Amino acid sequence: MQKAAETRAKIIQQAAGLFNQQGYAGSSISDIMRVTGLQKGGIYNHFHSKEELALAAFDFAIQLSSQQFLQAIRGKRYAIEKLQAMLQVYQQFVDNPPIPGGCPLLNTAVESDDAHPALRDRAQQAMTSWQRLIIRIIAKGITRGEIRVTAEPETVATILIATIEGALMMSKLYSNTVYLERAIEHLHRYLVQELSV
Amino acid sequence: MQKAAETRAKIIQQAAGLFNQQGYAGSSISDIMRVTGLQKGGIYNHFHSKEELALAAFDFAIQLSSQQFLQAIRGKRYAIEKLQAMLQVYQQFVDNPPIPGGCPLLNTAVESDDAHPALRDRAQQAMTSWQRLIIRIIAKGITRGEIRVTAEPETVATILIATIEGALMMSKLYSNTVYLERAIEHLHRYLVQELSV
Repeated sequence: MQKAAETRAKIIQQAAGLFNQQGYAGSSISDIMRVTGLQKGGIYNHFHSKEELALAAFDFAIQLSSQQFLQAIRGKRYAIEKLQAMLQVYQQFVDNPPIPGGCPLLNTAVESDDAHPALRDRAQQAMTSWQRLIIRIIAKGITRGEIRVTAEPETVATILIATIEGALMMSKLYSNTVYLERAIEHLHRYLVQELSV
Repeated sequence: MQKAAETRAKIIQQAAGLFNQQGYAGSSISDIMRVTGLQKGGIYNHFHSKEELALAAFDFAIQLSSQQFLQAIRGKRYAIEKLQAMLQVYQQFVDNPPIPGGCPLLNTAVESDDAHPALRDRAQQAMTSWQRLIIRIIAKGITRGEIRVTAEPETVATILIATIEGALMMSKLYSNTVYLERAIEHLHRYLVQELSV
């Protein structure tokens, strides 16, 4: 029983890295066999289809990243500090990515939006959670008088996420961190400009 | 001779929409046969491989978008007006996209960065052209005294492109234009804040 759970977890972990680099459509069962070192039957013992594995791998990848964000935020007291800590996590991802292939949310959103409804739904859920986290931090900051009352939490969440994800795409395309660094520096100033009382 | 050129152009155009929605890896030869209404032989008469067609389709998609940007810019006199006209083109793309499936540069960059070197090179070239266009407009604006001398053209190009592309990804994921609208409004203010003398 425990052995089966371990094998399942290993398949998910290795498939997550594969999917995040090659895409879901670009990863064949042979590729999954190669990275896991398992036969086809050994994989299908645990997952009924490539799609079932894809959904589990996406959840795993998002959980890995989310943990680091939540941990970074937990250590901070003030709302703006929490948002800055979130930006800092992206900076760390450059040298030490939780999963190879860039941001799993960006990759999955772009691949699934027109083509894979089940994956798109998962990507929507992950994106909604991320927005809500930012919105909650800002709303709490307003209540506590740390953030100006005219701040627009939904807009700030959009600008933070859009700028970071777009810059990640550029840095990944050129294998050059300068795009992400410019975005993070810009967003640090943006947070102070938009939010500070 | 002319018939052959027409068929080739038709294949490129229809494949471009298919690839932009389903991805390159997610589009089979059968899918290409379906959208073009041609037999396999009819397609391979014009392209030696799916990759050759993919490169031609990407170039076509980028050219379609670029034309609209260049046309919008040409009508404007001042540097900031030109950059604002560029943002306006994105707004128009929402209701009237040049090609179905969202931004071909974003889609191709994300799919190719770890998996398809030839397509990644094309995406890099298109991204570099776009950055250079923005940088040239700003540099000329500085020379003419329309833009402050402390402006950083490379940084502004990164922030414009990253924010737009990230917001397009979000709007596409939710089929909701609000993300792109927030990004465009934010960037209009950003341009004035960063560039105006």
